[in-house]
Amino acid sequence: MTNRTSPSSEALFAPRLSIEQVEEGDQLAPKFDERGLIACVTTDAASGEVLMLGYMNREALQKTIQTGEAHYWSRSRQVLWHKGATSGLVQAVEELRIDDDQDAVWLRVRVAGSGASCHVGYRSCFYRRVAVGAGQAQPGALMFTEAEKTFDPGRVYGDAPNPTLL
Amino acid sequence: MTNRTSPSSEALFAPRLSIEQVEEGDQLAPKFDERGLIACVTTDAASGEVLMLGYMNREALQKTIQTGEAHYWSRSRQVLWHKGATSGLVQAVEELRIDDDQDAVWLRVRVAGSGASCHVGYRSCFYRRVAVGAGQAQPGALMFTEAEKTFDPGRVYGDAPNPTLL
Repeated sequence: MTNRTSPSSEALFAPRLSIEQVEEGDQLAPKFDERGLIACVTTDAASGEVLMLGYMNREALQKTIQTGEAHYWSRSRQVLWHKGATSGLVQAVEELRIDDDQDAVWLRVRVAGSGASCHVGYRSCFYRRVAVGAGQAQPGALMFTEAEKTFDPGRVYGDAPNPTLL
Repeated sequence: MTNRTSPSSEALFAPRLSIEQVEEGDQLAPKFDERGLIACVTTDAASGEVLMLGYMNREALQKTIQTGEAHYWSRSRQVLWHKGATSGLVQAVEELRIDDDQDAVWLRVRVAGSGASCHVGYRSCFYRRVAVGAGQAQPGALMFTEAEKTFDPGRVYGDAPNPTLL
C-alpha cells in the first residue's frame, strides 16, 4: 500500500534496469554501496557554500524526500540521524538532486538557527584549506577559512561523544 | 627525501594522532576508508554549482595537491584518473578544502573547454532533481535541470566503456 504523503521505499525507488534508464531516465533509482549507503553533499541554498558531506541509507533518503528535512546515516554512531534534532540546526531542503549514475545526492538547504552545520562549531565542516600547485609554501599545512566558531559545541552537545573517529 | 615541488605522501599527510589534532590542527591528516578512498565534492569556482562527487586514493590526492589539477580514483575502471585527460575538460583547482574529521575533500575548480564535467554530456553530473516534502506530485519522479547537453559524449569518448555500473 502506498500513498502520496508516505510512499514505501519500494514505491519511491525504482529498480536499476539499464544504464540508459539510470542516466537518461526520469525514475529515481539510487545506488546504495556495499555498506548500504549513498554519499550526499549538502550546500547552503543561498551562498552555495558546501556545508558537509554525509551519507544516507535507504531510510534516510526516503525520510528526507518525505519530510523535506535532511536525514543522514551516522557512520560513527550507526543510527538514523535527523540533522538538527540535538542542536536545533535543522536543514530544510530547497532542492534535492541526484547524479548521472545515481550514486550521489546533492541537497541545497536552508539551515535553522545560527546557520551552522558543523559539530566543531563552524558554519561549514570545510573550514580549512590546503594550498595546491605553485601555492604550496609548506606542503600539507592547513589554513583556517573561518575566523571564529558560530556556536559553542560544549554547550550544544554537552557530553555526547564526539562523532569524529581516528 | 622531500622537496617543495614533489613531497612524498608520507611528508604531505600527517599521521592521525588525536581528535583535537584532526579537527582543530593545521596538519593535513586525511582519513582514507576501508577501500583506501576519500570522498571529494567538486564545485564550479565561479557559479558554486556542484559538478561531481568523486573519490581519491592517496596518490590522487597527492597529485591534485602537487599539480593543482584534479585527479580522482575511478572506482569503475580501477585506475588513477586525471580528469580531462581524454575529454580535455581539465579541472584547475582554485581551492582545496578538507572537512572537520578530514574524511572528505572539497575542490573549487575552473573547468577547461566547454566547462562540462559530466560524462553524459551535461555541465554538472547533478542534472536531475527530485521533489521533496509537500512538492511531491509524483514521488520518485526526476525532473531535468539542464535543457541540453554541453557536448556529444559519443564524439568525445568514442567507444570507451561507460563508467556507470548498475
